[in-house]
Amino acid sequence: MNAEPSTLQQQTDQLSGSVTRPIPGSRKIHVQGTRPDLRVAMREIVQTRTPTLFGGEDNPPVTVYDPSGPYTDPQATIDLAAGLAPLRARWIEERGDTRLLPALSSAFGRGREHDPRLDHVRFPARTLPRVANAGANVTQMHYARRGIVTPEMEYVAIRENQRLDLVRDALLRQQHPGEAFGAHIQQVITPEFVRDEIARGRAILPSNINHPESEPMIIGRNFLTKINANIGNSAVSSGIAEEVEKLVWAIRWGGDTVMDLSTGKHIHETREWILRNSPVPIGTVPIYQALEKVDGRAEELTWEIFRDTLIEQAEQGVDYFTIHAGVLLRYVPLTAGRMTGIVSRGGSIMAKWCLAHHRESFLYEHFEDICEIMKAYDVAFSLGDGLRPGCIADANDAAQFGELETLGELTRIAWKHDIQTMIEGPGHVPMQLIKENMDKQLRECGEAPFYTLGPLTTDIAPGYDHITSAIGAAMIGWYGCAMLCYVTPKEHLGLPNREDVRDGIMAYKIAAHAADLAKGHPGAQVRDNALSKARFEFRWQDQFHLGLDPEKAEAFHDETLPKDAHKAAHFCSMCGPHFCSMKITQDVRDYAAGQGVTAVDALAAGMAEKSAEFRAQGAEVYRPG
Amino acid sequence: MNAEPSTLQQQTDQLSGSVTRPIPGSRKIHVQGTRPDLRVAMREIVQTRTPTLFGGEDNPPVTVYDPSGPYTDPQATIDLAAGLAPLRARWIEERGDTRLLPALSSAFGRGREHDPRLDHVRFPARTLPRVANAGANVTQMHYARRGIVTPEMEYVAIRENQRLDLVRDALLRQQHPGEAFGAHIQQVITPEFVRDEIARGRAILPSNINHPESEPMIIGRNFLTKINANIGNSAVSSGIAEEVEKLVWAIRWGGDTVMDLSTGKHIHETREWILRNSPVPIGTVPIYQALEKVDGRAEELTWEIFRDTLIEQAEQGVDYFTIHAGVLLRYVPLTAGRMTGIVSRGGSIMAKWCLAHHRESFLYEHFEDICEIMKAYDVAFSLGDGLRPGCIADANDAAQFGELETLGELTRIAWKHDIQTMIEGPGHVPMQLIKENMDKQLRECGEAPFYTLGPLTTDIAPGYDHITSAIGAAMIGWYGCAMLCYVTPKEHLGLPNREDVRDGIMAYKIAAHAADLAKGHPGAQVRDNALSKARFEFRWQDQFHLGLDPEKAEAFHDETLPKDAHKAAHFCSMCGPHFCSMKITQDVRDYAAGQGVTAVDALAAGMAEKSAEFRAQGAEVYRPG
Repeated sequence: MNAEPSTLQQQTDQLSGSVTRPIPGSRKIHVQGTRPDLRVAMREIVQTRTPTLFGGEDNPPVTVYDPSGPYTDPQATIDLAAGLAPLRARWIEERGDTRLLPALSSAFGRGREHDPRLDHVRFPARTLPRVANAGANVTQMHYARRGIVTPEMEYVAIRENQRLDLVRDALLRQQHPGEAFGAHIQQVITPEFVRDEIARGRAILPSNINHPESEPMIIGRNFLTKINANIGNSAVSSGIAEEVEKLVWAIRWGGDTVMDLSTGKHIHETREWILRNSPVPIGTVPIYQALEKVDGRAEELTWEIFRDTLIEQAEQGVDYFTIHAGVLLRYVPLTAGRMTGIVSRGGSIMAKWCLAHHRESFLYEHFEDICEIMKAYDVAFSLGDGLRPGCIADANDAAQFGELETLGELTRIAWKHDIQTMIEGPGHVPMQLIKENMDKQLRECGEAPFYTLGPLTTDIAPGYDHITSAIGAAMIGWYGCAMLCYVTPKEHLGLPNREDVRDGIMAYKIAAHAADLAKGHPGAQVRDNALSKARFEFRWQDQFHLGLDPEKAEAFHDETLPKDAHKAAHFCSMCGPHFCSMKITQDVRDYAAGQGVTAVDALAAGMAEKSAEFRAQGAEVYRPG
Repeated sequence: MNAEPSTLQQQTDQLSGSVTRPIPGSRKIHVQGTRPDLRVAMREIVQTRTPTLFGGEDNPPVTVYDPSGPYTDPQATIDLAAGLAPLRARWIEERGDTRLLPALSSAFGRGREHDPRLDHVRFPARTLPRVANAGANVTQMHYARRGIVTPEMEYVAIRENQRLDLVRDALLRQQHPGEAFGAHIQQVITPEFVRDEIARGRAILPSNINHPESEPMIIGRNFLTKINANIGNSAVSSGIAEEVEKLVWAIRWGGDTVMDLSTGKHIHETREWILRNSPVPIGTVPIYQALEKVDGRAEELTWEIFRDTLIEQAEQGVDYFTIHAGVLLRYVPLTAGRMTGIVSRGGSIMAKWCLAHHRESFLYEHFEDICEIMKAYDVAFSLGDGLRPGCIADANDAAQFGELETLGELTRIAWKHDIQTMIEGPGHVPMQLIKENMDKQLRECGEAPFYTLGPLTTDIAPGYDHITSAIGAAMIGWYGCAMLCYVTPKEHLGLPNREDVRDGIMAYKIAAHAADLAKGHPGAQVRDNALSKARFEFRWQDQFHLGLDPEKAEAFHDETLPKDAHKAAHFCSMCGPHFCSMKITQDVRDYAAGQGVTAVDALAAGMAEKSAEFRAQGAEVYRPG
C-alpha cells in the first residue's frame, strides 16, 4: 500500500472523471420486470436522422447490453466508501433460507476486522454477511432444479433479450444464418429457459448472497458470449484505489465479470472495496491468498488454511472461485517434458504441494467439503486448468487433457450438490487444435460452460497478445465457449495499465461479438447493421456512438479531419471529395430505381438461384468427374 | 505537395533513424544461391545461453523471413535519391528478350518528364525503362510454363525455406500436424516446385522488369502466407517524403508487398520515388490515376487514357495492377438493395462508367489488350473485387459472388496469355461465412492465389478494425488465402499515421503466422518454440528479440520493471518473486527425473493412447447410444 490513509480516502472517494462520464451518445435505461424492484439496466444508443440526400428517415435507437453499472448513469450518486445499492438484497432475504451472521466465520477475517493497523485501508461501511440456514442450499442451480424462477433469472432473461422485440426496422433485423455447432440458440430468452439451462448445468448465474450489489448475468453457450477482465495488484505494483478505478474502467468498456487476482499485502481489504463497488460478479483464486498466509511456502498449505480462506472470501461476496482441484499427482510428471512446464500459478502451487506430500491435493480430497461451503453462499466453481499449456508446443497434450477429464469428474460431483460450475480452459493453442479443446470440454464436462483464456494462436508476438489471443477467443467462442478471459498487450511482459485494460477488453468484446454473429444469436447483427447504415449515410457521430469505443473512434477521425464541419461532410479523409464510392452508390440506386424494381429483383433472384444450386451440389471445390 | 523543393530533397535524403536502425538482436545474412549474384537476404536472430539453473546450453540462432531490404543492414549505404541497387538487372538482361526503350512510351509519362515545374519533386536518377522485344512474353509464368527455372524462382525457393535445414534442435523442430484444407504443403521448397506452382497459376512472383530493385518473393497458398501494406497520400493528406518513409517503415515490420494508393497531385513522381527505393513488389490501382486525368469524372474515362496509364506505370516498374474488370453491367443493380452499396473506389468508378454508357466497361472489353501490356513488362494481375461487401450485412451476396465468377473467367483469359494472376477478396464477412468465400474462390478461379482485405468479422469496432479483421484474416489464411491485405486501426475513420501502420502490420503478421502454423508449414513453429523456451528460461532479451516487435516488447517490460537487473531476474512482474510457476516447474522436472524417465514415459504413453482411442471413435461429442 503506497498511499497514506488520507490519500486513499481521497482517491477512493473520487473516481476520475474519465471512468465515470457517460458514454457519448448513450443513455442508461431500465426495463421493468414483473416486480417493482426488478429493473434491468441497459444502454440505449440514440441515432440522428438520415440526411435528406439518402432518404431523410428516422433511425431508431439501438439497445445494447451494458455491464457498466451505475457509473455511467448521470442520475446515480456514487460514493465508493458506501458502496453500491444492494440491488438483490430483498430477493435474497425473501427466499427465507439465509440468516445474518453474528460475526465473520473466518478466523482470518475476524483478525483483519479488528486490527487497528488496518483502519486506514478498511472499507468503512461493511455490514455482517449472510449464510444459508443449516441444511439449506442457496444456489441458483438448486432453485432452478426445484422449478423456481428467481428474480435473478428473470433479470437475466430480460437482459439477454436486449429489447430485441422493439426492433421493427427490417434492415436492422436482417441477419445471416449462423452455425451454432449444436448450441440451442433461442429466438427469445424466457425466464423459464434461463431456469432450465441453469438446472441442466449448461449455464451459471454467479450470485453470491453476500454480493447483493451485483446485476445478474449469465454464462452459458446458449446466451451471449461474455468476457472477463482480470485486475489485481502484485508484490511489485499497485494499491487499492488504483484497483477500484481499474474495476470501474474495465466494466465501462464491457467487462462482464472481473477477477481480482491481487497477491499484495492488503489482499483482503482490496477485495472488500472491489466487491462493495462492483455491479458485476467477482471471481478470485483463493489459493493465492492461502499461499500468502504460509509465506509463499506451497508445501505448508493445509486444508484448514484453505477452508478458512474460502469462507473468508465467500462471506465477502466473491461470486466464483477458481479451484485447481484437477491437478492430480499422476498428471504432474506429464508436464516434465513440456516446453514451458506448468504456467498456471495455481497449478504450479498445487503441483508442488502434491510432489512434496506425494499424495493427491487437499482440493481434490476435500472437494465435497468445498461443495458444502459453495452451496452455503452460492459461490460458483470455476474449475481451474492448472495444467493448461503455456505455449503452442504444449497445446492439447496428455497433462492438459488428463486434467480436463478430471474436471469432468469434479463437475459431476459439484452438480450432485447443485453447485453452479464452469470450466477453465487454455491458454496457447494453434488454430487447427482449438476445436478439439471445445469438443472435448463439452463431452467431458457435460456441457458445463467453458471459460477460456484466449487461446493465443501463436507465441511470437509479445506486446500484441491481445491480438494473438483474440483470434483464438473468437474461434472458440464461435465453437461454444461461454466466457472469454481477456489478455492485455502486456501479457508475458508486465502488469497492464489502464490503456492496456481498455485494449484488452476491446479485443475481447470484438471476439465475443464476432462469435455471437457466427453462432447466429438473434439480434446480434442489429448493431452491425445500424453502424453500417450510419457509415454509408455519413452520419459520423452515429457511427462513433454505435461503436465499442466512441471516444477512440472520434479521436481517430479528428486526427485527419479535425474540423467540426467535416463531421457532416459527405465524404471522408480516405478518398477525399472526388472519389466517394458512397456517393456513386447513390447514383446506382437511382439507376436501379429507374430500371424498375422488377428488373433488379429478377437479376438478384437469378444469382440467388445459382448460389442455391452450388450449395445443393455440396459446395465442394472439386466436383468428382 | 506541402514541402518546398529543398525540404523534399532533405527529407528524402535522410530517412529517420527510427526506420533504418537495425532490428535489436538481429543481423542481416545472405544465403548464397547457385550463382554469385544470387544472395538471398534473411534475418538471423541471435540467442544467448540458457542459464545454468535451467541446464546451461547453447541456443541456436533463429532465421526468419525478412522483407525489410537493405534498410536494416548496417553494411548498406542508403541514398534515396540514387535508389536501391538493381539486384535483378543482370538476370533480366541475360534473358535477352527485352530491350531498353529510347523514350517513355506513355504520353503522360513523357509530359511529366519534361515539365520544369516538376523538377523539384522528380526522382533524379531515373534511367530509361525496358520492354519485351516484339512478340516476346517476359512473365515468370511464361518462363515457368516453358520449364525454365529463373534466378527469381531459385531466390524464392531459398527464401521460403528460411534455412530450416540448419535447425537441428529437436525441441525447435517439434511441431503440431497442420490442417491444410487441400493445400500442397512441401517439406522443402525446391526451385522446381516454385516453377511448377507458377506454371499452374497457383502462385505468382510479382517482378516487373522495370523494378529490378525488388527481392523476389512469391504469393501462393503452398508458400508462407504474405501480407500487404497500403500506403498513399490523398487530396487531404501527405507528401512524397512521408510516403517513402512509410514504405520503409512498413517493410521494416514485415510488409511483403506494398500498394501505393496515392490519389494526390504528384502521384506519378511519388510512385517513382517509392519504386526506386522499394525491395518489395509494389502494386497500384491504375484507375485512380486515370480518373485524375479526367478530373474525377468517371464517365469521361476512356480505354485510351487507361491504356496510357497502364503503360506509364508499367514502365515505372509497378509489379501488380489491381484491375476491376469483373464489374459487369448486370451486377451493378444487384448492389442497389445493399446496406452499403459499392464501397470499393475502383468498383464504384467502373459502376458509374457502366451505367453512364450502358455497356460493359472498357476494362472487360479490352481485357486481352490489357494482357498484351502486362506480358510486355511482367506486371501481374490483381483482379479487383469492385463489388466486395462493405459491411457484414452485404457479405456473400449475389453481386459479390457474381463478380467472383467473372474474375474466374478473366483468370482463364490471363492464363491463356501466361500472365500471373491473383484475385482480390472481401472485405466484411462474419466468421461462419468466411470459408464459403475461400472455397468458391479456389473453385471459380482455378486455385489462383486469393488476396483478401481482412475480412472484418464485425462492424461494431471503428478504431479497432485491425483486430476485427485480423480474426478473419487468420481464418481465411488458414483456409487457403495466399496474401492478406492489412487494415489499420484508422480504417473507416482516417488515414493511418506511422504508429497505425505498425499496428496494422503487426496484427497481420500475427494472422499470417497463425495461419502458417495451422496449415502446418514446415518450420513455422520454430520461432514460437524458441520464444517459448526463452520465456521459460527467463531469457528476457531473447524473448524480446524473437518477437515480431522487439522494441515494443522491451518497452512494455520496462514500464513495470525498469531496472536492468530485472532482465536477468528469474521472476517477472506478473507474479512477483514468490509465485513463480516457472521455478516450480523446474522442481517438477527434478522430481520426474528422480522417478526415472521410464515411469513418466509410461504415464504419458497411457494418455496418448486414450487420446488416440477418442480420435478413432470419430472425435464426436455425443456418441450414439
